[in-house]
Amino acid sequence: MPVSINQLLERGVEEIFPSKKSLARLIGRRKIRLYNGVDPTGGELHLGHSVVLRKLRQFQDLGHEVIFLAGSFTAQIGDPSDRESLRKPLTPAQIEKNMATYQKQASKILDFSKGKFLYNADWLSKLTFEEVIKLSSHFTVQQMLERKMFQERLKKRKPIGLHEFLYPLMQGYDSVHMDVDLEVGGSDQTFNMLAGRTLQKNYRKKEKFVLTVPLLLGTDGRKMSKSYQNTVNLTAPANEMYGQLMSLKDELTASYLELCTDLPLEEVRALGKKAQKEPMEVKKVLAFEITKLYHQEEKALGAAEEFANVFQKGEIPKRVPSFTIKKASGGINPAQIAVAGGLAKSLSEAKRVIGQGGFTIDGKKITDPFKKIPLKGGEIIKVGKRRYRRVILERSG
Amino acid sequence: MPVSINQLLERGVEEIFPSKKSLARLIGRRKIRLYNGVDPTGGELHLGHSVVLRKLRQFQDLGHEVIFLAGSFTAQIGDPSDRESLRKPLTPAQIEKNMATYQKQASKILDFSKGKFLYNADWLSKLTFEEVIKLSSHFTVQQMLERKMFQERLKKRKPIGLHEFLYPLMQGYDSVHMDVDLEVGGSDQTFNMLAGRTLQKNYRKKEKFVLTVPLLLGTDGRKMSKSYQNTVNLTAPANEMYGQLMSLKDELTASYLELCTDLPLEEVRALGKKAQKEPMEVKKVLAFEITKLYHQEEKALGAAEEFANVFQKGEIPKRVPSFTIKKASGGINPAQIAVAGGLAKSLSEAKRVIGQGGFTIDGKKITDPFKKIPLKGGEIIKVGKRRYRRVILERSG
Repeated sequence: MPVSINQLLERGVEEIFPSKKSLARLIGRRKIRLYNGVDPTGGELHLGHSVVLRKLRQFQDLGHEVIFLAGSFTAQIGDPSDRESLRKPLTPAQIEKNMATYQKQASKILDFSKGKFLYNADWLSKLTFEEVIKLSSHFTVQQMLERKMFQERLKKRKPIGLHEFLYPLMQGYDSVHMDVDLEVGGSDQTFNMLAGRTLQKNYRKKEKFVLTVPLLLGTDGRKMSKSYQNTVNLTAPANEMYGQLMSLKDELTASYLELCTDLPLEEVRALGKKAQKEPMEVKKVLAFEITKLYHQEEKALGAAEEFANVFQKGEIPKRVPSFTIKKASGGINPAQIAVAGGLAKSLSEAKRVIGQGGFTIDGKKITDPFKKIPLKGGEIIKVGKRRYRRVILERSG
Repeated sequence: MPVSINQLLERGVEEIFPSKKSLARLIGRRKIRLYNGVDPTGGELHLGHSVVLRKLRQFQDLGHEVIFLAGSFTAQIGDPSDRESLRKPLTPAQIEKNMATYQKQASKILDFSKGKFLYNADWLSKLTFEEVIKLSSHFTVQQMLERKMFQERLKKRKPIGLHEFLYPLMQGYDSVHMDVDLEVGGSDQTFNMLAGRTLQKNYRKKEKFVLTVPLLLGTDGRKMSKSYQNTVNLTAPANEMYGQLMSLKDELTASYLELCTDLPLEEVRALGKKAQKEPMEVKKVLAFEITKLYHQEEKALGAAEEFANVFQKGEIPKRVPSFTIKKASGGINPAQIAVAGGLAKSLSEAKRVIGQGGFTIDGKKITDPFKKIPLKGGEIIKVGKRRYRRVILERSG
């Protein structure tokens, strides 16, 4: 069900340039063309991405035209000054493959039958030096320097590559080329999105609106990042997604409720208050509501039940993935078992994991990673609160 | 006669990057390729330009390859931010015409049968956005900001267009494209010339040397500029050139001797000392030596004689240009006479000139610009110290 214009421009919205009022007026008058820039590096999408995607879906549902723009130009040239980095320029074929990966994941939220995919290398690679000079003449050095990240680099006497001043021009020119009315993106993209607003005004004498969404924090309260393992991926299985959300830091419950669920705002506010006294109860609602969005309602219910059994009653999950390990006379040491079961990447990681004290075999705590244990098969290995594996023993010979 | 390497790299040289010693070593080993950038706006060349041109000629005489590069790229695109200015982009045909004008004037100093003309729009207009980004990645924003003119603008809170940061890249890329060993230019171009040094080092792992020549001041001691009327144009007639040099500010005599004459350095130094006591005598040497370079020696001698007669003995010059004016009953007013004779552009300018007190007819001072005077024909009109006109009266009917 389409949301109201008020909901569209308020819930999960950080800022609107130049103003919410003028954008509401435009949307009330006609259908608009809007876009969001997508990084074509092919990573996994998580709830952090969902905040923008859900906003785009709301626009789609109201009949507006959404463009998904792959930032293929930068991806194809790489960062020329980044001589140390392993990040290599991507080929057009790789980019297309990555965008298919993106589409597959994002289609859990968006309707791609209505959306349009574009690649900005199609026009940016054709710009000449003369056109770049004309583009850049619409900005002053002082405006670029106002950008917070550049201010910080100046203060710390860290170099700013001159080409870094050209990146906002690329993103800015996209708006002109596609002749969009609105760009939607994370608040960390505000500067670049406003560059497009400036250019659209100068090139077409038109208002380009900019709508920023807030950045969602990771489940542990830090910046959401794959490397912190604090993301909730959109393609995570229902049980995993539910469990990860149950581990959310209490203080983040309210923002997750607002940004990641379809619960009406009044309910979100009521739950936010309740969370201060009964955080677990509210988080169950949150985990269920979000899991429901990316899986069937039935699966979300199943995940809730499983979570209650396993974590609250201490039962073993209904379905535990198994792994095969070769029988050895004299037994197998726990570190090898952990690696074979995919619970650690290396023996040294296994040693660390076991040392941390969360490693059990059939409920019995194991502390020595190298003391051999006889296995019969069928044992349940557990690491931490939620990772289980069942042993299948392969008789040798 | 070719100069010595020492003379080449010292006289009329402000700075050499990275060092005089290393450039001397290169020149001692092989013939080099050097260039100078020419502004293709078709203005008149004056002694200020001669300092670079004379340096280039010295390289030519030693057998080095000199390229004259027309900065046609910038001339063709104009300054995109300069919306107020009347300076319009030039067409390739206009640029070619202007370069012919340049060549005609500069051929008084250079041997164009040996030199090569190139136009940088031939390669700069073909650069893509990707290549511009790569070029710019070799510079940091901090390096650009170090440039004095930008520092001043920042302090005065005057805007610096982002495209202004791209101009050094253009000039810098010229060096790479032409694969030159050396660039020669005025010291006001040092920053841009060093950009080329940086790029040549990064793109070709090669040293590009930079040799700057000092800026010659105008005859009145201010910056040399057409609008100050303090230039000595290379195509000025011998008498005019000689006279203008005699009006040189005393303090500039030594620098003009060093930069604009072929007199040996020892003589230049001796004359410099002498000038402190007998400035007029030394200036006569200077004026003769410079006039001789751009005219026949005989003409320079004639100019010296004429100057002595007219300015020192108060005689009327041998040859005075004439103009025709219609006879009118009741006479003609002096302002009209001045305009008709080309001594003032308008009646209001004529009024001002006459008011300044330097206007005579047959030696008789005229002060009222509008009091009619009866003319018989053949009168000598004089304005200031050196401008004479002879009246030819046209009988009406």
